[in-house]
Amino acid sequence: MYREQIKVLDCTIRDGGLINNHDFDEHFVRSVYKAISEAGVDYVELGYRNSKKLFSSKEYGLWKFCDDDVIKRITHGIQSNTKISVMVDVGRVEVEEVMPKAESPIDMIRVATYVKDIDKAIFLANDFHQKGYEATINIMAISKDQGPELDEAVQQIEEESHVKVVYIVDSFGALYQEPVESLVKRFKAILKTKEVGFHGHNHQQLAFSNTIEAIIHNANYLDGTVYGIGRAAGNCPLELLMGFLKNPKFDIRPILDLISKEFIPLREKIEWGYIIPYAIAGMLNEHPRAAMALRKSEKKENYKEFYESLVSTGLE
Amino acid sequence: MYREQIKVLDCTIRDGGLINNHDFDEHFVRSVYKAISEAGVDYVELGYRNSKKLFSSKEYGLWKFCDDDVIKRITHGIQSNTKISVMVDVGRVEVEEVMPKAESPIDMIRVATYVKDIDKAIFLANDFHQKGYEATINIMAISKDQGPELDEAVQQIEEESHVKVVYIVDSFGALYQEPVESLVKRFKAILKTKEVGFHGHNHQQLAFSNTIEAIIHNANYLDGTVYGIGRAAGNCPLELLMGFLKNPKFDIRPILDLISKEFIPLREKIEWGYIIPYAIAGMLNEHPRAAMALRKSEKKENYKEFYESLVSTGLE
Repeated sequence: MYREQIKVLDCTIRDGGLINNHDFDEHFVRSVYKAISEAGVDYVELGYRNSKKLFSSKEYGLWKFCDDDVIKRITHGIQSNTKISVMVDVGRVEVEEVMPKAESPIDMIRVATYVKDIDKAIFLANDFHQKGYEATINIMAISKDQGPELDEAVQQIEEESHVKVVYIVDSFGALYQEPVESLVKRFKAILKTKEVGFHGHNHQQLAFSNTIEAIIHNANYLDGTVYGIGRAAGNCPLELLMGFLKNPKFDIRPILDLISKEFIPLREKIEWGYIIPYAIAGMLNEHPRAAMALRKSEKKENYKEFYESLVSTGLE
Repeated sequence: MYREQIKVLDCTIRDGGLINNHDFDEHFVRSVYKAISEAGVDYVELGYRNSKKLFSSKEYGLWKFCDDDVIKRITHGIQSNTKISVMVDVGRVEVEEVMPKAESPIDMIRVATYVKDIDKAIFLANDFHQKGYEATINIMAISKDQGPELDEAVQQIEEESHVKVVYIVDSFGALYQEPVESLVKRFKAILKTKEVGFHGHNHQQLAFSNTIEAIIHNANYLDGTVYGIGRAAGNCPLELLMGFLKNPKFDIRPILDLISKEFIPLREKIEWGYIIPYAIAGMLNEHPRAAMALRKSEKKENYKEFYESLVSTGLE
C-alpha cells in the first residue's frame, strides 16, 4: 500500500469553510494546523484567496481571503513540515494581489476551474508558478464534463502549463469506482509530465473508496478532510485515508484527538455527512445546491418529494 | 449496470436488531415490510430464528425468534412479491423447531457461520433445503479467515451442500476493494453451481463501494439495509444500492419515504453509522465489540486513547 510518491493534502479549513462562510475562529484553525502538522500530512489548505474587491470581508470569514498576515499569525510558533496551500477560483482572484512566493507563507496555489474556463486557469496557474509557487489545476464537476472537451483541456494543461498536479474533482459525489478508474487512466495517458490528483465528495459514501480507486490507478495527490467535513456530504475522511495508506511517516493519533476535541462539538453546530438529499443529488449527478437549500427549509426531511422534484426537473 | 440475475436482500430488521435487542415494534416492522415490498426488493430478512431453549423471550424482542405466527401477523394484508428470509447462527437453532416450508411463511433460511464451523453449517443448510426452503451459507468475519482453510470450506460447500448462495460477510468492515475483488474471484472459481453473495459492514464507509466491487466481479446476491442500519457502523445503505443498480424493477421512493418517517426519528434513539471507534476497529481488522463497549461508556469520545488501547492489545 505504501508508495513514496503519494502526497496527502488536508483541505479541512478550505472545503469546510464552504459550510460556515469560511468563518472558523483562529483557535480552531490553529488546532487543525497543529494536528495536521503532527500527523505528518504533506499539505494543508487553509482557504480561498479571493479578491476583496469582489467579496466583502464583512460578509465572510478570514478563510475566504487567506491574507498572508493571517496565515503567518495562525501558524506562528507551531513546529511543522506541512506545506501550506490556498485555492483560487477562476474569476474570483486578482493576480496582482498575489505576492511573490518569497514574501508569502504559502507554498502552493490550487486553481479550481470548470473545463470551459481552462484557458483562464492555465493563465492563473502559470502566473503563480512564475512567482515561485507550486501550482495545480483542479477540474471541478468532472462527472458532468466527460466528453472530448475534457481530453482537450487536459492536453492543453500538459502542453501549456507549469502545474505540478492536475486534479479530478468529483464535485457532485456522482462517480462510482469504474468512472474513477477510467478518468485516472485518461488523465495519466495525457499527462506525461504531471501528477494526477483526486478530490472526492461523499454524497454517496464513495469519497474514500474512490480515493483508493484513484490510488490503485496511480493518482498520487489525494485530498482528505478531518472527519470528512466539507460542502454538503463532505469529503474523504482524512483519518480513513491515513488508516489505508499505512505510510510510516503518518501518525493518525493527533487527528483522532482533534476529532474528539473539536469536530464532535462542531458537528452539533454545522451539518455535513451522510444526509439523504445529498445522496439523491449524487445518484442523479446533480449539483448539491437544491439539496443544500432543502436542508435550510422546513421540508428538510421530505426526501421522497425532493427526489420527485429533481427527477421531474430533469425531464423538462 | 443492469444484470437480471442480481437479487437484493434487505436485512434491516435482522442486522438492525443487533443494536436494539431485536425489539422493533410491530408497526415499525410492518412499515419496513410494506416499503420493501413496494420498492420491489427481492428478499426481506426479518430476524434470527434462535431457539427459545437457548434464549429467553423475556430478554429479547420478537425478531430474535421470528416465530412463523409472528411473521404471518406482521405481513398480513400487505401486497408483496418479496420473499421472506430469516437467519440462523450455527449452534443457536434447533432444527426440529423449523417446520417444513409448506407450513411456514418463510422462503429462505440463511446460515451464518465461521469457517471453523462449516460442517455444522452444511448440516443445517441441507436440513432446511430438504424441508423445502431456499438455503444459503454466510461466512462471517472473512477478513480474519483468508487462509487455505477458507478455500477448503468453500469447496466443501460446493461439494456437500444444497445451498443456493454462499455469502462473503465482512463482519469487521475491514475489507478494501482489492480484497473484495480477490475474494469474489476465489469464490467464483470454486463455486460452479452456486451464486456468490456479499454482505458489507460500513465501519470504514466502504460497505456500498465494496458491494459495487462484488457486483463488478459477478456476485449476484447483495445485502443492504434501510439508511444503512446495522450493528456498529451498520451496513450498505439500501437506497444507495438501488440508486446504483438502476434496475427498472426497483422503486426507490417508498424507501426514501420510510427513511423520512421512521428512520430519522429512530436514529435519535439508537446509534449506528460513521462513528470513529468503529472506523478504528475496521482499519485494525478487529471485531467491533470493544468499540461497542466504548460507546456505552463515559469515554465514548476518547478516540486517541481507544486507538492506543487496541494497538497495544495487538502487540501482546
